[in-house]
Amino acid sequence: MTLFGTRTVAQIAIVVRDIERARDHFARLLHTDPPPVVVSGPQEESKMTYRGQPSDGRAKLVFFDLDNLQIELIEPFGGPSIWQEHLDQHGESVHHIAFWVKDTDGRKQALAEHGIDETQRGYFTGGMYSYYDSIPQLGVMIELLERFDGQG
Amino acid sequence: MTLFGTRTVAQIAIVVRDIERARDHFARLLHTDPPPVVVSGPQEESKMTYRGQPSDGRAKLVFFDLDNLQIELIEPFGGPSIWQEHLDQHGESVHHIAFWVKDTDGRKQALAEHGIDETQRGYFTGGMYSYYDSIPQLGVMIELLERFDGQG
Repeated sequence: MTLFGTRTVAQIAIVVRDIERARDHFARLLHTDPPPVVVSGPQEESKMTYRGQPSDGRAKLVFFDLDNLQIELIEPFGGPSIWQEHLDQHGESVHHIAFWVKDTDGRKQALAEHGIDETQRGYFTGGMYSYYDSIPQLGVMIELLERFDGQG
Repeated sequence: MTLFGTRTVAQIAIVVRDIERARDHFARLLHTDPPPVVVSGPQEESKMTYRGQPSDGRAKLVFFDLDNLQIELIEPFGGPSIWQEHLDQHGESVHHIAFWVKDTDGRKQALAEHGIDETQRGYFTGGMYSYYDSIPQLGVMIELLERFDGQG
């Protein structure tokens, strides 16, 4: 098994400046209705930390469920975030690939042993996410997703 | 069904400067032996065209087979290519997501109707690939892959 405990890529996520515009283009190519835009929770709910500090950074999100993974669109707003940092540095582009894991802190430690450190984490109803600065090694950022009910 | 005729993302591909280095990092995280580096064919075989002109651009390639898709690494060399262009403009980063299709020229026409034009194509034993300039619409480049035996 891999360091992530899975051999399945759960998501490919793309950071964009105008999520409705990108969503509508994807929907036309995927021949589907445009999914709703959802918004990440405020700091009181998400407890989001970016590079070690609490941040008010948030994002508008859209998810397309394909047969073998999700394509996620991300439009950052509010305070600093790894999403805004990526958009500022790289423009509209793929932001991360995601894996569902069962033990975020154990996987965080294992990644740190490879020189790959956490840059942001936050919580959502029933779970959490965390991002890792793996671009120098892999050319792409890694996200770990965990559901606290152990499913996933 | 989607414009691509499939709802499955076949590959996520990352363009890198040093493919052995990136491969070895991925292999360590995926707990697998490093796959071999393969090399795209020369112009005589690939008949590669980049932005409408034949080019000697080639690439070293590595493929990791995960459970639901391939992660592909690409190190360009030789003449001009969409791989080298992306590396020069964006640095090491995700280059494309790929779909297996049955009718490249029909899909090419359908993408053109959305303002998304082909930038490069080439041939390999039993099949072909083509890239489309979808970054302005989608934030990510699309690749279409086709096997001439109709499988895929």
